[in-house]
Amino acid sequence: MIVTLNKNISKKEIDELIKGFKDKQIEAEFIDFNNNKLLLLFGETEMIDENALSNNEFIDKAVRVSTPYKLVSRNFKEEDTIVKVGDVLIGGKDVVMIAGPCSVESKEQIDEICGLVKESGANILRGGTYKPRKSPYYFQGLGQDGVKYLVEAKKKHAIPIVSEIPSIEKIDEFKDVDIIQVGARNMQNYELLKALSKIDKPILLKRGMSNTIEELLMSAEYLLKGGNPNVILCERGIRTFEKATRNTLDLSIVPLLKKLTHLPVLVDPSHATGNWELVEPMSLAAIASGADGLLIEVHNNPTIALSDGGQSIKVDRFKNIVEKGRKIANIIGRDIK
Amino acid sequence: MIVTLNKNISKKEIDELIKGFKDKQIEAEFIDFNNNKLLLLFGETEMIDENALSNNEFIDKAVRVSTPYKLVSRNFKEEDTIVKVGDVLIGGKDVVMIAGPCSVESKEQIDEICGLVKESGANILRGGTYKPRKSPYYFQGLGQDGVKYLVEAKKKHAIPIVSEIPSIEKIDEFKDVDIIQVGARNMQNYELLKALSKIDKPILLKRGMSNTIEELLMSAEYLLKGGNPNVILCERGIRTFEKATRNTLDLSIVPLLKKLTHLPVLVDPSHATGNWELVEPMSLAAIASGADGLLIEVHNNPTIALSDGGQSIKVDRFKNIVEKGRKIANIIGRDIK
Amino acid sequence: MIVTLNKNISKKEIDELIKGFKDKQIEAEFIDFNNNKLLLLFGETEMIDENALSNNEFIDKAVRVSTPYKLVSRNFKEEDTIVKVGDVLIGGKDVVMIAGPCSVESKEQIDEICGLVKESGANILRGGTYKPRKSPYYFQGLGQDGVKYLVEAKKKHAIPIVSEIPSIEKIDEFKDVDIIQVGARNMQNYELLKALSKIDKPILLKRGMSNTIEELLMSAEYLLKGGNPNVILCERGIRTFEKATRNTLDLSIVPLLKKLTHLPVLVDPSHATGNWELVEPMSLAAIASGADGLLIEVHNNPTIALSDGGQSIKVDRFKNIVEKGRKIANIIGRDIK
Amino acid sequence: MIVTLNKNISKKEIDELIKGFKDKQIEAEFIDFNNNKLLLLFGETEMIDENALSNNEFIDKAVRVSTPYKLVSRNFKEEDTIVKVGDVLIGGKDVVMIAGPCSVESKEQIDEICGLVKESGANILRGGTYKPRKSPYYFQGLGQDGVKYLVEAKKKHAIPIVSEIPSIEKIDEFKDVDIIQVGARNMQNYELLKALSKIDKPILLKRGMSNTIEELLMSAEYLLKGGNPNVILCERGIRTFEKATRNTLDLSIVPLLKKLTHLPVLVDPSHATGNWELVEPMSLAAIASGADGLLIEVHNNPTIALSDGGQSIKVDRFKNIVEKGRKIANIIGRDIK
Repeated sequence: MIVTLNKNISKKEIDELIKGFKDKQIEAEFIDFNNNKLLLLFGETEMIDENALSNNEFIDKAVRVSTPYKLVSRNFKEEDTIVKVGDVLIGGKDVVMIAGPCSVESKEQIDEICGLVKESGANILRGGTYKPRKSPYYFQGLGQDGVKYLVEAKKKHAIPIVSEIPSIEKIDEFKDVDIIQVGARNMQNYELLKALSKIDKPILLKRGMSNTIEELLMSAEYLLKGGNPNVILCERGIRTFEKATRNTLDLSIVPLLKKLTHLPVLVDPSHATGNWELVEPMSLAAIASGADGLLIEVHNNPTIALSDGGQSIKVDRFKNIVEKGRKIANIIGRDIK
Repeated sequence: MIVTLNKNISKKEIDELIKGFKDKQIEAEFIDFNNNKLLLLFGETEMIDENALSNNEFIDKAVRVSTPYKLVSRNFKEEDTIVKVGDVLIGGKDVVMIAGPCSVESKEQIDEICGLVKESGANILRGGTYKPRKSPYYFQGLGQDGVKYLVEAKKKHAIPIVSEIPSIEKIDEFKDVDIIQVGARNMQNYELLKALSKIDKPILLKRGMSNTIEELLMSAEYLLKGGNPNVILCERGIRTFEKATRNTLDLSIVPLLKKLTHLPVLVDPSHATGNWELVEPMSLAAIASGADGLLIEVHNNPTIALSDGGQSIKVDRFKNIVEKGRKIANIIGRDIK
Repeated sequence: MIVTLNKNISKKEIDELIKGFKDKQIEAEFIDFNNNKLLLLFGETEMIDENALSNNEFIDKAVRVSTPYKLVSRNFKEEDTIVKVGDVLIGGKDVVMIAGPCSVESKEQIDEICGLVKESGANILRGGTYKPRKSPYYFQGLGQDGVKYLVEAKKKHAIPIVSEIPSIEKIDEFKDVDIIQVGARNMQNYELLKALSKIDKPILLKRGMSNTIEELLMSAEYLLKGGNPNVILCERGIRTFEKATRNTLDLSIVPLLKKLTHLPVLVDPSHATGNWELVEPMSLAAIASGADGLLIEVHNNPTIALSDGGQSIKVDRFKNIVEKGRKIANIIGRDIK
Repeated sequence: MIVTLNKNISKKEIDELIKGFKDKQIEAEFIDFNNNKLLLLFGETEMIDENALSNNEFIDKAVRVSTPYKLVSRNFKEEDTIVKVGDVLIGGKDVVMIAGPCSVESKEQIDEICGLVKESGANILRGGTYKPRKSPYYFQGLGQDGVKYLVEAKKKHAIPIVSEIPSIEKIDEFKDVDIIQVGARNMQNYELLKALSKIDKPILLKRGMSNTIEELLMSAEYLLKGGNPNVILCERGIRTFEKATRNTLDLSIVPLLKKLTHLPVLVDPSHATGNWELVEPMSLAAIASGADGLLIEVHNNPTIALSDGGQSIKVDRFKNIVEKGRKIANIIGRDIK
């Protein structure tokens, strides 16, 4: 970290600053060049909150040279982390297809759709059980029953499952869920992250709708630091001024994340766009950009469903994505099982 | 709600849609004008998720005429909600001054600062105990001890206190905290909101850094619907492209919220700007815009504090804000006690 | 357009409103349902500024049912517009590759790079001549000389060229430039658009860094309305809170634009990401998303160039993109020539 | 500027970099500390485009210590710039009130409104003549006639006028306009800025709807560098995710700009909010935040005007703002004449 000092700082104040850093196990070297005063810091600089520093009255600016995260960094661990879920490897050569309904609505619904998506090429089944809804008047999910039906579908169809956890108290309830999803709204729920860092299950960490890549990696750092190395990142669209799509899918972060971190990176084109017509092109684009997998909402509803999310596609479209997606994956040296 | 239909919709499909709405206790009236087909919906339309509607294959667009929230609305309850905390009335004629340190750091620190801010005009003491920090390596707050020291300061100095709750499990620990703050990162933590709607304590609900006014009001609706009418809203800056300030303080929503809802509206200029030099002008601006109170970070640290947040001001500056702020409040027919 | 009226509006005021619309050739039909008062407007509603309407004291809300644009709309003209530039067809089956340096730096540089990119698969040469730079101290382009060198390269290598025009006065200077680019900062420079609508040359209209799809289409409408049907749209990244990439490439608008308009849609992954390492994955993703072409910055600089934009790639990487891109294009029924 | 180098850079490459900088009159000092390699640059570093630098293959990061602008900086010129327009001083002790209609609609309208706003406390008259409208179908302003009527009102009522210039060719037409406004959409129209830097008239430079403070100051730098010192900055709201107001008024930049630059800073609450009900509270807040003046839209339309902008207030409300605003100005040591 490089710290630029106030021009009027005295020798005594510089020494106090250096001592302050030393107390935190940080070495500080003073440089005076052309009337600019700098401190060069080394050691475990991830311990230092640069915002706090920047506001010390003798400090003008604090600039990181190294990253504020460590364990998730590609510098710390060069080889890709591959998360194993049953027979499925996430982060390896194969692009992993995760599909299923927005919400588990009934035992029959999730059973039927599970069979259909598996047959069409899904490697993992997804389904919402506790749904975070902006209105208290909207359907909030089946809760514990939803989890139960999802687990039954998993057992019957022999496919791993993923579902979003709403809060710490439900960890036990999710004991048969293979991958626990932390939703976008919980990406910076640090108490939840600390609790999940202590369990022996892969965590699918979705980017918050207005969180930076750096914040996403810092949240993942909470999980790794706490002891859980099996973390999967997921881009699901960010909030911008553009309202023609529900969110703005930020595909550029896929190759950027692959460079910065060893963790797998998925893309959720359904929530990102909020529009079923955009799911296929964005799925193919995500694969072309280097994503390790996709999270796609699929429904099986033949009639007019008032509660049906507009971003869900039908099973035959999903099958089409898997087929075209496999060919694109092949072009960039990957595959879909 | 007004629903525009696909031009090719058949009579039979229209009837099915109308029946679908009727099953949800919503009356739907069909209108065909100039080859445009519309459904006008009335009844408890806050039950309807318009996003889901908009994506039904026979529906082009769904537009709300009434608000998606109800209990928090000025239409539902015209008179201002005044939240009583000890002798302090929030939402009444007086602009309420809430001040204190970013974090409770020790028994002595919070005791000293409590005395100072009370003397300088603070009506309520604030202090962070569990701190949501983006890095697991940063100081996370004193936790339970912090709460203890804060409560001791409250008792000694006879001043109400507010502190941010990190998760549901801590509700009991906060039993002597007068106002429970839901932080920006938890504004859409609906499990937490549901739990807090069941307790008998005022809730200070901060706007999430990328949440709309509508979403803020919907989160407040969770609290009122669950049974807790004592909700205080707080603007604390939103995330935008501009990085010269930590967040962009959105003062325009103060008068807009006062029009839309009967709930009190506070402003936190410290977190919004992240820069102590901007706290005074933005505090005065917030009062001029019609805020019901301010949340200001004040420190008492005479030396170089590496951990000190750059947005904190010294006690004498706070006193200055109270004095000028009172004069501005008087001009718009309000006061500061 | 649907207009919801104030509940207290009188019969007389309604009649005045209806008359006001009639004066603008708009038919208005009044509907009173369940104590909600509406006006349904039909006719050339693109003439109505709904913002102005929404603020009339008797009007609560004005909602468009049809689009605010007309000539650019897929509803108005169903078949794709194909812009012909020499032998190159933009908007047809082929994905068009446009490549070249950020700036024309010398006669030799543009000559050399033109030969190289043409050989590697470029269909059109790009090169900046007047550069809009945020600082008056940065290199502003070669101006008229740059245009001259670009035209010479065009003639020698028999390849069409595109360059950005800075202002109306330069239109004559650009007479041998095949496609005139309107840069992101000029997307809403309506005087420039009006002038360009009168010339007989294709216009490449880049999306402004914080403009919506609707605004992009409205700017294109200025060109078509003025008489120039040969408009090519281009997504080049939008400004968001995320600073890890220069802009956020909004690929989802590619399939959305293809649905809304008949005009061709290009993508510029170089300016969008500002990072050469992301250009290849984002180029492939753009093709997979359905783009009609790419605009890529390519440099030929073998040494340390301090003025070199970080988003430029080397020629061999460009060749690689063309080759992989062609295979991806084939999978979705397209080609690269 | 501090440049961090790639760890694998060789001695020879470092020397080449240093020589490259020297060729641009920049001194570079190499430092190797704890295996981190740095170059410290001094001299006229505003000449260096740090984005370009950051992407050189041997350079990791380039960080400015000094500002990228110079002439507009408070460091360069400490005392406030006061722009004199007739008898009105902008940037001095008085908060300047600029008021008038959105558009000049007729000779009579601007004459009447000019008299009314002057009487109510306006120091300068504003009026749109060439209106940048997102749709080619909307009213585009009276153009040359509008300028003529505005100048007539100026002469009759003896009040300075300000109007927005659409493009370079109109400079002559604006010869009797006292202050030339560069609209938000033209803030980065550098050809226009260069032309206006050569004329002897104050320029009112509005912040672009998605431009940073730094970019605003860089655009002002174009004007000062070209020879025009009479530049007035104006905040008019930025584009964010929040759509409940037309733009988000960013008042925090007022005190920040006053610290960074010696130029006057105005606020336009009408365009920022797009809502007449918010104009008064935001006007008072702007004064409290330290603005040097306000730009307010006022209309005199007693009947239902379909073309009337929703952000315009009536004259009596404007008078009210002037009166309360004066009292608030007094509290912070300023005045309104």
